[in-house]
Amino acid sequence: MPAKRASPTVLLTGFEPFEQELLNPSWEAVRALDGWKCGRATVHARLVPCVFGDALDALDRVMDELQPVLVVCIGQAGGRAEFTPERIAINVDDARVPDNHGRQPIDVPVVPGAPTAYFSTLPVKAIVRELRAGGVPASVSNSAGTFVCNHLFYGLMHRLATHPSAAGARGGFIHIPYLPAQAARFPGAPSMSLETLVDALRITVKTALAVKHDVAETGGQLH
Amino acid sequence: MPAKRASPTVLLTGFEPFEQELLNPSWEAVRALDGWKCGRATVHARLVPCVFGDALDALDRVMDELQPVLVVCIGQAGGRAEFTPERIAINVDDARVPDNHGRQPIDVPVVPGAPTAYFSTLPVKAIVRELRAGGVPASVSNSAGTFVCNHLFYGLMHRLATHPSAAGARGGFIHIPYLPAQAARFPGAPSMSLETLVDALRITVKTALAVKHDVAETGGQLH
Amino acid sequence: MPAKRASPTVLLTGFEPFEQELLNPSWEAVRALDGWKCGRATVHARLVPCVFGDALDALDRVMDELQPVLVVCIGQAGGRAEFTPERIAINVDDARVPDNHGRQPIDVPVVPGAPTAYFSTLPVKAIVRELRAGGVPASVSNSAGTFVCNHLFYGLMHRLATHPSAAGARGGFIHIPYLPAQAARFPGAPSMSLETLVDALRITVKTALAVKHDVAETGGQLH
Amino acid sequence: MPAKRASPTVLLTGFEPFEQELLNPSWEAVRALDGWKCGRATVHARLVPCVFGDALDALDRVMDELQPVLVVCIGQAGGRAEFTPERIAINVDDARVPDNHGRQPIDVPVVPGAPTAYFSTLPVKAIVRELRAGGVPASVSNSAGTFVCNHLFYGLMHRLATHPSAAGARGGFIHIPYLPAQAARFPGAPSMSLETLVDALRITVKTALAVKHDVAETGGQLH
Repeated sequence: MPAKRASPTVLLTGFEPFEQELLNPSWEAVRALDGWKCGRATVHARLVPCVFGDALDALDRVMDELQPVLVVCIGQAGGRAEFTPERIAINVDDARVPDNHGRQPIDVPVVPGAPTAYFSTLPVKAIVRELRAGGVPASVSNSAGTFVCNHLFYGLMHRLATHPSAAGARGGFIHIPYLPAQAARFPGAPSMSLETLVDALRITVKTALAVKHDVAETGGQLH
Repeated sequence: MPAKRASPTVLLTGFEPFEQELLNPSWEAVRALDGWKCGRATVHARLVPCVFGDALDALDRVMDELQPVLVVCIGQAGGRAEFTPERIAINVDDARVPDNHGRQPIDVPVVPGAPTAYFSTLPVKAIVRELRAGGVPASVSNSAGTFVCNHLFYGLMHRLATHPSAAGARGGFIHIPYLPAQAARFPGAPSMSLETLVDALRITVKTALAVKHDVAETGGQLH
Repeated sequence: MPAKRASPTVLLTGFEPFEQELLNPSWEAVRALDGWKCGRATVHARLVPCVFGDALDALDRVMDELQPVLVVCIGQAGGRAEFTPERIAINVDDARVPDNHGRQPIDVPVVPGAPTAYFSTLPVKAIVRELRAGGVPASVSNSAGTFVCNHLFYGLMHRLATHPSAAGARGGFIHIPYLPAQAARFPGAPSMSLETLVDALRITVKTALAVKHDVAETGGQLH
Repeated sequence: MPAKRASPTVLLTGFEPFEQELLNPSWEAVRALDGWKCGRATVHARLVPCVFGDALDALDRVMDELQPVLVVCIGQAGGRAEFTPERIAINVDDARVPDNHGRQPIDVPVVPGAPTAYFSTLPVKAIVRELRAGGVPASVSNSAGTFVCNHLFYGLMHRLATHPSAAGARGGFIHIPYLPAQAARFPGAPSMSLETLVDALRITVKTALAVKHDVAETGGQLH
């Protein structure tokens, strides 16, 4: 019992490379923080496959094992310029391209019979405020898309909302830009350096652990 | 009773102008179809205020009056280039700017205690397919934002899901670009002509009345 | 002889379709004005091949034949949202993709030994001002690219600057968006209706014939 | 004489902050390389005012003093995501906003009576190739705009082309993105870390010193 209370666990997940990429910035960033102590908490970084279904199985296994109090899943959003905490996960898989196992579900629920959507339980506004104050370009995003990222995000939030062992735990999802070396292959694409991404993750974990009730700060979008 | 069955009602709503605009393309487009007969159905076009709360009151009144079998609410999305049926309405008001009455809610629910989100019950994939076939640039959108447009969309879907008189009725929301004369004031902004917008609305209504089960066609987004 | 002076000639050119396109908005728009009388002037619309070299040969032939006082060449700029008069033609061919005859020159001059660039002799600021006043989204562009459009533009300006028969004649180039039916095949792409394009061309010709000295109105870009 | 040949001089210039910015990435990046030895060459970094006219006076003074064999001027391009060597400088000042001294020239030449444009004499294609190979997002740009950046670029190229002491010297201009801390204030804006910018400058100087004849590699734009 004292052991458990001695160091709460924070789980960060990153995805394996997707499509023709050789690396995935989400995994490069989170693995840099594996073992990091944020206050009393210890960060564990884990790799998740970019495959519908398998991603959730992997998440379930690692949550069973680690019993984290905070889970932040990270995914690549090629084309975005900012570090973007997602506001909402939606109960649909709609793949524009096949995943890493060739699966391409179209308009089927992530979890049949479950709610249409879940809001992130991260303090997304406070996180964005702290990121900007720390010099990191960041915005709240209102759509995590409908591919494996949203799939994992939805699965995470559904487990946090319904699994007995998850009581009191919080979590969410963040989309991040390409690394510069990836963007160098896509003329015009924005990027963010690994150093900035890792700084941003530190700020995120620190803020998520400290802020219980999100700030009421404007971060909405007209459309 | 026979009179009622003789001509089902379709309700199209458009918004009043917003910010410094002198017109709103959503109202210009829908009012052009007021009285249009689409098969047996008759289209009614109504103006809605760009005000949190008031927009829903107006919608309630007109739905009580008209008892429509199909409701399509339209809103302006300055900066978008396409006709974009929205997939999902979310239960949050988060205004980046004040509405037309100076109200600026931040992170409060549209309907307290109601579900986190509702999916559109329009066949959005079939509509996009028909629009493209008809020469109209169109895509499914996965976020209607968090301003009055999403507010109205959420209120509509909540009423359709819960109001006794709405049984069997369907509805959704579509964001549309600026008109050319509006975009002429914002260098770089895309636009769509009124003629194209009205054509697109006709295709939308026709498809929504004809297609009961949406097509499983890819229309997702990676993020 | 008096007959000739009675009606000055305006030449509008449009390109044949390019890549997998079935039509080119530049030709669709200019051919709608073939034979149009703008004041005393008569508009002639001609098709130009989307081929390095051949495009200039075609232009030379039609200018020899028509002896126009005003030449406006039009080209498609997929991805642009506005009607964009070009400020400057540069003396380089640098093809990112092959032209319609498979030619792909890289970093060679349009006209060896000729000046590095020519400014348009159209009153581009006055044209943009009149277009916006007429409800057409428009901006001055500072780069016509380095493909066949810039090639034709440069060849035109070089001929206007050096050919004996061109004394006093003026000309320039305008890039225009996709038509809606084209953009319907490229999710996210902006477009402009044929009706708006034709209106814009009328305003352009009228303004170019009326304004001898361009207005000093801001239209620059920071970068 | 031996002293002169012992270490050729490379001049890098950066601008002072512009508008409400507190810093300018161009100066932050170049000053990090002041004194750097690239092979036999020595890099000198100098600050240039963001003022029409004064920028060229400052450039003239430092070139008189240093007699550089290579000059690379750097400027901020807020909104761009890449490191972008400019292909061409054009002989026009057209300020969308006032400069740091309140000057706002509109459609006047940088140097009256001088050529319409100059091409960069940097090997821009080779530089972009080496940057991408080195993991830096980069593209050739075909327009440096019409503000103080293009003004300085044009003045530089005019001096290199006409000043007796500049024989054999080469030069050009590069636009760079915001730093992350700047972009954090403009939601949606792309950025590049100082570390990446400094790496990119090293690659640029090294390549410019090594490559006398640019590679014929596609880098053009359709429009």
